[in-house]
Amino acid sequence: MIEVKDKINIGLIGLGTIGGGVAKILHDKADSITKQVGIPLVLRRVADLDDTRKDSLPDPGVFTTDARSILEDPEIDIVIELIGGEKPAKDFIEEAIRQNKHVVTANKEILAKYGPELLAMSDERQVGLFYEASVGGGIPLIAPLKRNLQVNNITSIHTIINGTTNYILTRMEKAGLEFSAALKEAQDLGYAEANPTSDIEGFDAAYKIAILATIAFHTDVRPDDVYHEGISRMASQDFRYAGELGYAIKLLAIAKKEGDSIQVRVHPVFIPDDMLLAKVDGVFNAVQIEGDLTGRVILYGRGAGSEPTANVVVADAIHIARSINLGTELQPELPLDAPKLIKPISEIETRYYIRMTIADQPGVLAQITRVFGDNLISISSAIQKEVDSTVQSTEIVIMTHTAKEQAMQQAIDQMKKLEVVKEINNLIRVED
Amino acid sequence: MIEVKDKINIGLIGLGTIGGGVAKILHDKADSITKQVGIPLVLRRVADLDDTRKDSLPDPGVFTTDARSILEDPEIDIVIELIGGEKPAKDFIEEAIRQNKHVVTANKEILAKYGPELLAMSDERQVGLFYEASVGGGIPLIAPLKRNLQVNNITSIHTIINGTTNYILTRMEKAGLEFSAALKEAQDLGYAEANPTSDIEGFDAAYKIAILATIAFHTDVRPDDVYHEGISRMASQDFRYAGELGYAIKLLAIAKKEGDSIQVRVHPVFIPDDMLLAKVDGVFNAVQIEGDLTGRVILYGRGAGSEPTANVVVADAIHIARSINLGTELQPELPLDAPKLIKPISEIETRYYIRMTIADQPGVLAQITRVFGDNLISISSAIQKEVDSTVQSTEIVIMTHTAKEQAMQQAIDQMKKLEVVKEINNLIRVED
Repeated sequence: MIEVKDKINIGLIGLGTIGGGVAKILHDKADSITKQVGIPLVLRRVADLDDTRKDSLPDPGVFTTDARSILEDPEIDIVIELIGGEKPAKDFIEEAIRQNKHVVTANKEILAKYGPELLAMSDERQVGLFYEASVGGGIPLIAPLKRNLQVNNITSIHTIINGTTNYILTRMEKAGLEFSAALKEAQDLGYAEANPTSDIEGFDAAYKIAILATIAFHTDVRPDDVYHEGISRMASQDFRYAGELGYAIKLLAIAKKEGDSIQVRVHPVFIPDDMLLAKVDGVFNAVQIEGDLTGRVILYGRGAGSEPTANVVVADAIHIARSINLGTELQPELPLDAPKLIKPISEIETRYYIRMTIADQPGVLAQITRVFGDNLISISSAIQKEVDSTVQSTEIVIMTHTAKEQAMQQAIDQMKKLEVVKEINNLIRVED
Repeated sequence: MIEVKDKINIGLIGLGTIGGGVAKILHDKADSITKQVGIPLVLRRVADLDDTRKDSLPDPGVFTTDARSILEDPEIDIVIELIGGEKPAKDFIEEAIRQNKHVVTANKEILAKYGPELLAMSDERQVGLFYEASVGGGIPLIAPLKRNLQVNNITSIHTIINGTTNYILTRMEKAGLEFSAALKEAQDLGYAEANPTSDIEGFDAAYKIAILATIAFHTDVRPDDVYHEGISRMASQDFRYAGELGYAIKLLAIAKKEGDSIQVRVHPVFIPDDMLLAKVDGVFNAVQIEGDLTGRVILYGRGAGSEPTANVVVADAIHIARSINLGTELQPELPLDAPKLIKPISEIETRYYIRMTIADQPGVLAQITRVFGDNLISISSAIQKEVDSTVQSTEIVIMTHTAKEQAMQQAIDQMKKLEVVKEINNLIRVED
């Protein structure tokens, strides 16, 4: 059935920071958008439970607290879901697709947890489900991965994909702040939430790398498959040592393909300070993609914020709207390959930085190096510093050659039992 | 008319470096491509005037020296044009479109000179004309600019878009080579052609920035609109001074929008060495795009080479082939806005670095600073060095505050007439 429309109607669910940005762009850039689509994109209805938010709308008359009135409105062509979180967002997205509406969302949690099922559902209904905004904010990422980089055999992704943690790590490095002070500063500036767990502990990055790995490797990667650690154990000394050794410390989300298995993990890493990723500071994000044909490609930009994220939400809506207006159906999703084995973290091999506090007495280093040796881990360098004469302890930093994670964890357990080891202060993996 | 096809046929014109890469990818990745398209992409015919190249083909039987046999073959759906240059490539592209064939090309010269007409022609025939490979090699660039960044009001593009010149400048900076030695090295490594004029003098970059500016600003920008200078006047001293002053020297292609007018230019620039673009070394390319919504976005990767470029050629072909197989027509081009005024170089305002050789005698600096003052150019810093006592000359470097190009050119003319000025060695614009 070909229907000639004189406008495309949008229903927006969620009028928070990004939702407000979307409403503003649709209003402020209406002329430019109409030119791109061919006919106007009209914000027909906006739902949010918080009634006070309606005053931020150019036209408060379209406001409702009832999201169902959007899902059930047969005039609405595209539903934009921006409430975030799992419930009731997932129900809303499913219902919109069931009603044959196209969906645009920034919801990383839902895409990471249920993306393959939802995309299959939208393909079946021949509607679009677009989620460029779910990863990397204003950086064009999902569309280029799906279209331009797919001929590639993508072998790895290394990404700084959480602006909050990158801001905190940058301030710890550049201003010598401790973690808690840097977090406080990020919260004061609105870069970190009051409850920062999702960012700080790597959950947010885990959702995002699950989405990227699924697209890049054509395989099903869910958040539960992603090993993740946060940054709260980082201390200012770690940054000083990293600087001396020629490294930067970043929270990386990493996905690698090795034969038929893949590894997907989020944790702080030492990266050489001449890598471009090491120069990505503050709230900026960057995604480094290695492929057999393209070599290294890096996409960099603002990973969060109202305007950059709202920009890609509206760009997705324009893409859908053009296709509705021109009658040029959207290309369906590529089917995923058979599931690949996800390597447990204990199986990975990497180099390590270990910082520990030890007793300041003869023979200590010999005991420690013996533990490494017993576990077949070879040491590439060691730094000993800062004797605290009042407590007769000293700090040492050890960099290892490539070792198996399992062996390293075993060595750490054994060292903890040594009387001369007062504390294992930090263990950070190294990526070259 | 809906036609059910069991394969999509490709005709490839031009079996040089990139063409060879395309043939290899279509062969080596046939299974993966078939999965993406739904049906096989078949390389039905390959044309090149050089008969000896056929042996590089997986199936030499498809080779011909007659490109017309591709254009006239009704079974061919997609023509890939990779011979480069204006003639006869333009005729081939036009003829392919006239025969209702989709076209994929890496031809920057033709896109820059005739893009708007050719795209109008392909829209009218409802076939695709894709040219991702014409700019930035393996970097996803054209598609993201068209799709993800279009809601933005793009205000500027700063790009390192020519790998040959970036390799030469990198070697001059890092190894202290002079231009001629660095060029020789680039030629030996296959990064520069035997006749390097197009790269070295900025023609190649001018074509590319014309293409990008046309898309970013929705306006018609042709190579003749692009002011360009090359890098052959760079000397090792310039890099030493740049380093001392906290800058890197890069050949940038720049497009900026200022109200209703735009400026588009290619020339060497000083950029602060803490900018990410300053870290883009060797044959890598990077494109920095500033928009009102996204802020700064940077896309980085290999700008040339057989595999990265062939990758995006094949990705474009896959995009078209999927659409043919699925019956989901391709979205047409956006129409361009009314032409914008292109600002002549004499009207731009920027800061400058000037290196000159002067007589080593009292009162010289006073004469020079007077010329600057007379032209309303204020000096921000000056370095005087390297007295050559045998010829009684000395070298000075002056950094200015923002000044108009016209004023600067006038000052240069006046200084050349001063007896105490032996030579104006270099004038390089500064971008912050």
